[in-house]
Amino acid sequence: MSPPPGAPVGGVVPVAPTIFHPDGSLDLEGQRRTLDFLVDAGSDAICVLANWSEQFALSDVERERLTDLALEQVNGRLPVVVTTSHFSTRVAAERSRRAEAAGASLVMLMAPYHGATIRAGEAAIRAYFAGVADGLNIPVVVQDAPMSGAVLSAELLADLAHAIPNVRYVKLEQSDAADKLRALLRLAGDVIDGPWDGEESITLIADLDAGATGTMPGGVIPEILGEVVRRHRGGDRAAAVELYERWLPLINWENKHGGLQTTKALLMEGGIIASDAVRAPLAPMSHELRAGLVDLARRLAPLILGWAE
Amino acid sequence: MSPPPGAPVGGVVPVAPTIFHPDGSLDLEGQRRTLDFLVDAGSDAICVLANWSEQFALSDVERERLTDLALEQVNGRLPVVVTTSHFSTRVAAERSRRAEAAGASLVMLMAPYHGATIRAGEAAIRAYFAGVADGLNIPVVVQDAPMSGAVLSAELLADLAHAIPNVRYVKLEQSDAADKLRALLRLAGDVIDGPWDGEESITLIADLDAGATGTMPGGVIPEILGEVVRRHRGGDRAAAVELYERWLPLINWENKHGGLQTTKALLMEGGIIASDAVRAPLAPMSHELRAGLVDLARRLAPLILGWAE
Repeated sequence: MSPPPGAPVGGVVPVAPTIFHPDGSLDLEGQRRTLDFLVDAGSDAICVLANWSEQFALSDVERERLTDLALEQVNGRLPVVVTTSHFSTRVAAERSRRAEAAGASLVMLMAPYHGATIRAGEAAIRAYFAGVADGLNIPVVVQDAPMSGAVLSAELLADLAHAIPNVRYVKLEQSDAADKLRALLRLAGDVIDGPWDGEESITLIADLDAGATGTMPGGVIPEILGEVVRRHRGGDRAAAVELYERWLPLINWENKHGGLQTTKALLMEGGIIASDAVRAPLAPMSHELRAGLVDLARRLAPLILGWAE
Repeated sequence: MSPPPGAPVGGVVPVAPTIFHPDGSLDLEGQRRTLDFLVDAGSDAICVLANWSEQFALSDVERERLTDLALEQVNGRLPVVVTTSHFSTRVAAERSRRAEAAGASLVMLMAPYHGATIRAGEAAIRAYFAGVADGLNIPVVVQDAPMSGAVLSAELLADLAHAIPNVRYVKLEQSDAADKLRALLRLAGDVIDGPWDGEESITLIADLDAGATGTMPGGVIPEILGEVVRRHRGGDRAAAVELYERWLPLINWENKHGGLQTTKALLMEGGIIASDAVRAPLAPMSHELRAGLVDLARRLAPLILGWAE
């Protein structure tokens, strides 16, 4: 159930993959079923249009359509985080305001980037987030993603949180997220509601030890990762570790082999969606890696394989 | 005047900058005047929505609006090249078909890329351009741009030209474009109408020596660069070199200091547009670099400073 407005969002916030038909068109029915699964799996919130949703392969019209569909389908059952990244401050701000108007509880953005070489300096990054937050009433998640090629120090992240009232969440995707979270919380713990990690939750235990209150994985096992967070934050670290380590082989397979296709492959295997297609030029997972994934998942029996039955 | 349909496009093909009001909104009147200037300056064709047009800072709706405006304003006086790059094959193909329907003479695309780490392998790049070209009747310019982070060998470019009938143009933006052009023309000279260079024409003489038939600079001095190409291809290399070297300081200032702001700064200085604003997070040129640019340009007296008088 959605927390009261203004209450911090934490726990497990999976990214919903974007579901395509085999021809690459949007599968809106599959999208709805995927969102329903993520709600039923005990997610604390759901993120749409993230990189794990192939946001970089969508047109603007499709982004809007998927935002509206997600908010309609989730229908207040959970907070929805809408990714609104764009290189241009102006376009990112417009996307964010539109997401708020459509009912998003939070927006998430990376610092501006384009291609291999176009990045913004620190002053421009500060102005970017200030520009996006201006006139926005919902909180902003700063997504610190190595994929973007933008380098955000703990000091810069802390400055953003201090300077911009609705920058209340930071999602760290680095291998060294734990120590960066510590540094960040030392500098700005008083103004950050959501120190989160990402990256399929592959660094979750160390990040929870460092003070993370939420994690943004793919959509494979929200029911497990949510329980890991609850056990850890409830004080039973040993039980959190035990559960996490049992599921680590599957988390690792997603992080190292299956990537953004992992959730889709298991949604399809579980009968929740009809096709696990990704949009070209991304290529399907090899038969061999997919077989290894399905074998591993069947052994662990996550909800994603049984929900549709 | 536009060449007959099907005739190769070459010579100077400047990139039209996207003109913004100081608040970052599109300045459509300034855009029209910029296009008129580029036509009057003796361009052989005009390219819109390139990186030098800040394409990465535009929404999809703005791209469409600017495409339509350019084709309406140029009105058949010259061929128009519309950049239609997008990571997704499907979206890039849709953009390209739309550009053709709107009247584009060519479309130009980079190989797919996103952020610091997401690239496509060779097979996926082949499929990407084949997918974009499928059902398209106008030629495709493959833009080989280091900014994209995609590495395209001469062999791969030649394969694309051999395998895909409307891949007839390749634009090379590397410092070593000359030798790459030679390798490309050895492998696929029979199926390439436009071996072009780019990068503000900073490597133009060596590239013409290597067989380039066109160059895609910014919009600062089309009247000069067109004449350089004509002299060289007419057999008077010494006269081409003499003219080029006289203007090289300005070309170098754009390439090394002013970047995509150079054309706008001089359009404004020449009274053609009212504002040389770039879209945040890009920052204005420093006062000092702009003063150096204007001083240098006034000494050389290009058409851009006198056209509006």
